Amino acid sequence: MKENRVARVMEVLKKMGLSQMLIVDPMSIYYLTGVYVAPFERFYGLYLRADGQHRFFLNNLFNVPQEVGIEKVWYSDTDPVMEMVAKYMDKTTLLGVDKDLKARFLLPLMEMKAASGFVNASLAVDQTRGIKDAIEQEKMRVASDINDKAMARFRELIHEGVTEKEVADGMLKIYLELGADGYSFDPIVSFGANAADPHHEPDDTVLKAGDCVLFDVGCIRDSYCSDMTRTFYYKEVSEECRKIYDIVRAANEAAIAKIRPGVPLCELDLTARNLITDQGYGPNFNHRLGHFIGLNEHEFGDVSSVNTQKAEPGMIFSIEPGIYLTDNTGVRIEDLVLVTEEGCEVLNHYPKELEIIG
Amino acid sequence: MKENRVARVMEVLKKMGLSQMLIVDPMSIYYLTGVYVAPFERFYGLYLRADGQHRFFLNNLFNVPQEVGIEKVWYSDTDPVMEMVAKYMDKTTLLGVDKDLKARFLLPLMEMKAASGFVNASLAVDQTRGIKDAIEQEKMRVASDINDKAMARFRELIHEGVTEKEVADGMLKIYLELGADGYSFDPIVSFGANAADPHHEPDDTVLKAGDCVLFDVGCIRDSYCSDMTRTFYYKEVSEECRKIYDIVRAANEAAIAKIRPGVPLCELDLTARNLITDQGYGPNFNHRLGHFIGLNEHEFGDVSSVNTQKAEPGMIFSIEPGIYLTDNTGVRIEDLVLVTEEGCEVLNHYPKELEIIG
Repeated sequence: MKENRVARVMEVLKKMGLSQMLIVDPMSIYYLTGVYVAPFERFYGLYLRADGQHRFFLNNLFNVPQEVGIEKVWYSDTDPVMEMVAKYMDKTTLLGVDKDLKARFLLPLMEMKAASGFVNASLAVDQTRGIKDAIEQEKMRVASDINDKAMARFRELIHEGVTEKEVADGMLKIYLELGADGYSFDPIVSFGANAADPHHEPDDTVLKAGDCVLFDVGCIRDSYCSDMTRTFYYKEVSEECRKIYDIVRAANEAAIAKIRPGVPLCELDLTARNLITDQGYGPNFNHRLGHFIGLNEHEFGDVSSVNTQKAEPGMIFSIEPGIYLTDNTGVRIEDLVLVTEEGCEVLNHYPKELEIIG
Repeated sequence: MKENRVARVMEVLKKMGLSQMLIVDPMSIYYLTGVYVAPFERFYGLYLRADGQHRFFLNNLFNVPQEVGIEKVWYSDTDPVMEMVAKYMDKTTLLGVDKDLKARFLLPLMEMKAASGFVNASLAVDQTRGIKDAIEQEKMRVASDINDKAMARFRELIHEGVTEKEVADGMLKIYLELGADGYSFDPIVSFGANAADPHHEPDDTVLKAGDCVLFDVGCIRDSYCSDMTRTFYYKEVSEECRKIYDIVRAANEAAIAKIRPGVPLCELDLTARNLITDQGYGPNFNHRLGHFIGLNEHEFGDVSSVNTQKAEPGMIFSIEPGIYLTDNTGVRIEDLVLVTEEGCEVLNHYPKELEIIG
C-alpha cells in the first residue's frame, strides 16, 4: 500500500462526505497498492474505509502473492462475489464508487442495499492521481525524453514509396532500443488528407510529395506514458499548409505561455481556440486542447473550453491544438507540460519549426 | 444494421418485459450494426426501442461516415452527453442496460430519472451473441483452422536455450503468414513450473529438458477469435507428467463426448472435474471448464459447475480442463467446440497425443 497516496484519497473522500469507497480501475489500484492485474471480465476491487478496514478483492486466478498491507479477500469463479463484497460494506452510509464500476457489479450492490446510496466518487482518486508526486514527475520526464529521441529517429522511416503502416510498424523497435517498455498507444501516422482525421489509423496510403506527415506517438517507460505530436512535410509544402502550421504552432505556444498555478484550464483552451478562430479556422479545431496523462495515456481531467478547474503544481497534461481540412490536410502540434510553482515545464523538447523531409 | 440480429435481441428483451435498452459494449454494437469504434473514455451507445425509434450515439471524433439504418446522434466533448441520451428515453418504463455500462454514465441517468428503473439486460444481447449464425460459424472454423496450423509451426520455435518470451515473440509472424489478422489474446507460453499458473505471462525462463511446454494461443481472423491449448514435453517426460497428461486428456475427451443439445453446461464441467477428482487431483483443477468465444476471446457464458444453462445448437465454447502442480508443472488441453443438432463439432484438429519435442 502506498500510504501517502491512500491518505490523500481518504482526505478527499472525507471532504466529499464519504467514509467508504470501492475502486475498480486496475491502474488506480496499481497507483494505490503497487499491484497490477488485468482482470478482464472478472471482478477486481479495492475497498477503502475511513476506519482503515480496507479490503482487496481478488479472483484466485490472479497472481498476487505479495503482501500489500491490505487484507485480501480471495474468491473463485463460482463464488457469489458481489454478495461477498457487500458483506464488508457499511450499509448505513453512502458508498463512493469508481466511475468505471460496471452495471453488472453496481446493480447487484444496489439491489442488496449494500450502502444507503451510491455516488460517483472517482474524483477522490482521479484528482489525487492528477497531481503527480516527485517520483511520478521524474518518470514522466524520462518517458518524454525517450519520446523526443524517438521522434528524431521516426523521420528516418520516411522515404519514397513508404506507406503509413510501414512507418508505424517500424516505430516499436526504435522505442525499445531507446529503453521504452512499449507503446503508450498505437501510433498515429497520417499522410496528407488522412491527417484531417485526428484519430486516423495507419493504412496502406503511400507517401507523396507535398503530403504532411503527422506523427502522434508515445511510449511507456516504467508504467508512465509519453505522448507527443509533430507534423512534418514531405519534399515540399504548400502556402496553405505553411499558413495553418504557423497558426497551430502559435496556438500551442500561446497556450503554454499562459500556464501557471491558478489559471483555469478552460482559459488555456480558449487562448489556443481564439487564436485559431481569429484566423478563420475555428470550426477546423474540433477537439479539446488537451488531456491529463500519467499511468494511463488518457487520465481524468482535460483542458477544454468547459473545464473551469484551476492549474495546480504537479498536474501534467497535453497541449495539442490542431487544424483539420477535410479531404485535404491536417496539422497538430502536441507537447506534455508539467505545472510548476512558477509556471510550467515543457516535457517535450523536439523542435517545433516547420521541417521539410526528403 | 443487422436486421435479424437486432430482431433476435428485441425478442428476448420483450420476454424480459423490457421495451428499451442501452447497449455500450463496442463489440455488441459491431455485432448489431457492423460498425466498430474504440471509444476509450468517451460515451458510445446504441439505444434500441421496441417501437423501432433506435438511436446511435457517437462522439464527433469517431470516424463513422457510413449509413447504418439507425439515426445517429452526434455529440462533442463539451456537450452534456448523458442529458442528450436521456431525452430519447421513455421515462415511464424500465430501461435495460448493458452489463458494461459504467457508473459514470449509469448514475447520471438514474439521477435524471431517465427511466422508471434500471435493469441489467445484457442477457438479451449476450444470449443472442451466444448462438452463432451460419456466417459466424464459418468464420470460427476458419480462425480455428489457422490456429491448428499455427500450433504445428509453434513447435519449430522450441530449441535449446530458448526463453518463453522468445517463443512468444515468434508467434505473431507465423499467425500473420497463415492469414490471421493478429492475436485474439497475448499468447501464454509456460515452461515447467510456470505452467502451474494458468495465466502465466511469458518471461525470461529458459527451457530445460523434462519441462512441459504449454501453449495457450489464439488468433483473430475476420473479427472472430480462436483459442486452443496444447501441452508438450521437452526431450523427456516424467512418470508424473505423463500421468497427469493422460488424466487431463481423458477429461477433455469425456466432456466433449457428452456435448449435445439439452445437456446442462454444468454437467460438462462436472464430467471433467469428477474424472480429475477421482484421480486425486480435484484441488489442482482450479478454474471452470470453459468459456464462450466469438467476436471476443471471452464472451458471456461459461462451462462451470454452477451454470445450469443447456447446450443449444450454434453455441461455441472452449473445453479446457487442467491440472496444476504448484512449483512443479501443469497441463491444460483446450479445444473449441460448436454445438450441433446431433452433438458437437470440434473446431480444433491438432492432435492430443502426448508429444515429446527435441
